[in-house]
Amino acid sequence: MDQAGLRRGNLALLVRTLREHGALSRAQLAVRSGLSKATVSSLVTDLEQRGLVHSAGVSAGGAGRPGQLVGLRPTSVCGLGLDLHLDHVGALVTDLSGAVLFRHRIQCDVPALGPDRVLDQLAALAKEALDAVAGAGGHAAGLTVSVPGLVDTDAGAVRFAPRLRWREVPVADALAARTGLDLARVAVDNDANLGAMAEHAALPVSDLVYVTGDFGIGGGVICGGRLVRGSIGFAGEIGHMSMDPLGPTCSCGRRGCWETQVGLQAMLHACADPEDQVHDPTLDRDQRMTMIRARAERGDQRTLHALHQIGSALGVGVSIVVNLLNPAVVVLGGYFAALPEWLVEPVRQEVAARVLAPGAGGARVVGSRLGFTAATTGGALASLRRVLEDPASVPILSAAEVAPS
Amino acid sequence: MDQAGLRRGNLALLVRTLREHGALSRAQLAVRSGLSKATVSSLVTDLEQRGLVHSAGVSAGGAGRPGQLVGLRPTSVCGLGLDLHLDHVGALVTDLSGAVLFRHRIQCDVPALGPDRVLDQLAALAKEALDAVAGAGGHAAGLTVSVPGLVDTDAGAVRFAPRLRWREVPVADALAARTGLDLARVAVDNDANLGAMAEHAALPVSDLVYVTGDFGIGGGVICGGRLVRGSIGFAGEIGHMSMDPLGPTCSCGRRGCWETQVGLQAMLHACADPEDQVHDPTLDRDQRMTMIRARAERGDQRTLHALHQIGSALGVGVSIVVNLLNPAVVVLGGYFAALPEWLVEPVRQEVAARVLAPGAGGARVVGSRLGFTAATTGGALASLRRVLEDPASVPILSAAEVAPS
Repeated sequence: MDQAGLRRGNLALLVRTLREHGALSRAQLAVRSGLSKATVSSLVTDLEQRGLVHSAGVSAGGAGRPGQLVGLRPTSVCGLGLDLHLDHVGALVTDLSGAVLFRHRIQCDVPALGPDRVLDQLAALAKEALDAVAGAGGHAAGLTVSVPGLVDTDAGAVRFAPRLRWREVPVADALAARTGLDLARVAVDNDANLGAMAEHAALPVSDLVYVTGDFGIGGGVICGGRLVRGSIGFAGEIGHMSMDPLGPTCSCGRRGCWETQVGLQAMLHACADPEDQVHDPTLDRDQRMTMIRARAERGDQRTLHALHQIGSALGVGVSIVVNLLNPAVVVLGGYFAALPEWLVEPVRQEVAARVLAPGAGGARVVGSRLGFTAATTGGALASLRRVLEDPASVPILSAAEVAPS
Repeated sequence: MDQAGLRRGNLALLVRTLREHGALSRAQLAVRSGLSKATVSSLVTDLEQRGLVHSAGVSAGGAGRPGQLVGLRPTSVCGLGLDLHLDHVGALVTDLSGAVLFRHRIQCDVPALGPDRVLDQLAALAKEALDAVAGAGGHAAGLTVSVPGLVDTDAGAVRFAPRLRWREVPVADALAARTGLDLARVAVDNDANLGAMAEHAALPVSDLVYVTGDFGIGGGVICGGRLVRGSIGFAGEIGHMSMDPLGPTCSCGRRGCWETQVGLQAMLHACADPEDQVHDPTLDRDQRMTMIRARAERGDQRTLHALHQIGSALGVGVSIVVNLLNPAVVVLGGYFAALPEWLVEPVRQEVAARVLAPGAGGARVVGSRLGFTAATTGGALASLRRVLEDPASVPILSAAEVAPS
């Protein structure tokens, strides 16, 4: 590693330390990082000039002399997660502390509109989000688009998203051109991968499987603390596990894929006849969930029976993944996370019954706390990671911009 | 890293370099390792004293002065792989070059004999193998036992092996006591994990799935170059994926597990009526395979139809794993590898049809070249790894033992 790489690594180390421990004096930062006090002082000055840290009061006694505390300015850098969906596009901005600064969603029929018009919508949403970041005096680390389908992350392109009916769409190029952002700061990833990263950031485990619950079903797999992408980045397509050779036709053209059994559409159809208002196409997912929840809470038998059946089918598929990967946690995301009281228990029962390892190999099944926002939260986090790994990628502020201490 | 750790690492580096490039002069070793010539000379002397290297002639010209070549003595260190099986115990010894020095198998009814008597047999086999190593003038790095079931590798114990009907058997303790080997040199691992390691050592890919083909079916998963063990070591139990809720009862007590469809017993029953001689319990796997091959080769319709059906059911399960993990290669082991002409193509067809990613995400399906010896080969390799990582674990020879140059 050369001199510049070493400094970059040390800047990242200080930011990480402040993120984990909160404000610290330069002396405390030196102790925790193992760097000399002179080096720490020089690095802190650098971080100050980029607006990433500021003075945060005086340390309260302790063993050493009281010292000026250095704290992160969370809003100094923000990450933007964008969401491409069957019936909407969405955006979510978080700062360095994980706080949500901006969140917006626009209903639209993505397959019908086609890539060009959808990317226009998405770019308009991105600009709104970037304006919100600028308004808060922050720097946008970048944006990451979540896609329910096969993504070439190197090229920033969608290879195949069956439910969107998109093939070979260069999303990153299109958004960079439309927003004026540098292409290096525009990323595209699979929705389940981003959801898994967001869940993993909040859970102290090294082996985790995240299952999206939406019209489509996807999987994000963390093994040994690392996201499993597979040989060319297409891992996690659990929605298309063959579960029933005689089952209904899937969006991918095959029969009996798992998502035809447990996807959002399957759940809604199991819960309600075609003329039921829950199928009204003008409703969004949250409104539908509110209706289904209300019916389940008042003990509607049709709904309870349907949810139990969906939970069991969900459990059969989850148990395959648990037998194969022995995760510590399976996180049920999306709509599953909106109905945990009725879905999690049937899944646990199937997993307990079907996994070879005693006690399901220790695998816990939980509902996501992020729900429908897991992918955009993961996207914002992925964008922030660029700055966390290289704080010097944030530009040095002019004297006028430096925040007063 | 301290001085001793550094020297250990450098010894390992030289052994690795000699293993990859063959014999080299000290000067060439210095260039390739980046170490000084003085350090290389001192390390080579150390390796000579342990019998790991010897003089191997004089380098033929080239740019520099001709120098004395240093070469590995492959037989100086051997690894022992032991095999616990439904109807036999086995042993295989390989040296540093991978050459097989010893191989033996004893037919026995493992579930009927029970752990104590089987471990006696296994220990007797291990002693025979260790004698063969000593007879070849080698040092035994250790032994690794392959088990078709759930293994606690830290404790060296079998937790649950349904087909052997073993629960909670401290295999490493038992074998250390019976052979006199140091417990630190006795390891236990899952058969599919060991098979995956053996296949991975021979294939230039980072993402690989190995499927055992025997009475039971197991999976060994390599992601990003690392074996996936899961949160408590129980990953890879793909034989117990639920494929058919109405299917036959499995050894694990559940119904319709994948191994009831594609295990060796299912294949034999699909190929031949119960009174057929292929079911004769005195036959071993190789003899049965020879019979099935002969029938397939002469175009017996019953056999061909049965193998196609097994291959298709194998492909359905493999496509689930490929959708989830996007491996570069799926290696079909065990009996599948004995009948590749009839099984591989139906698997490829199902994978091509059922995997969402175009072109099956690049996944190639191949028969193992190691066949029924993959697990013991992997066990021998795992035992050797200890010496490859720490050559100083090989004792220094007395002057009389040092091989003449």
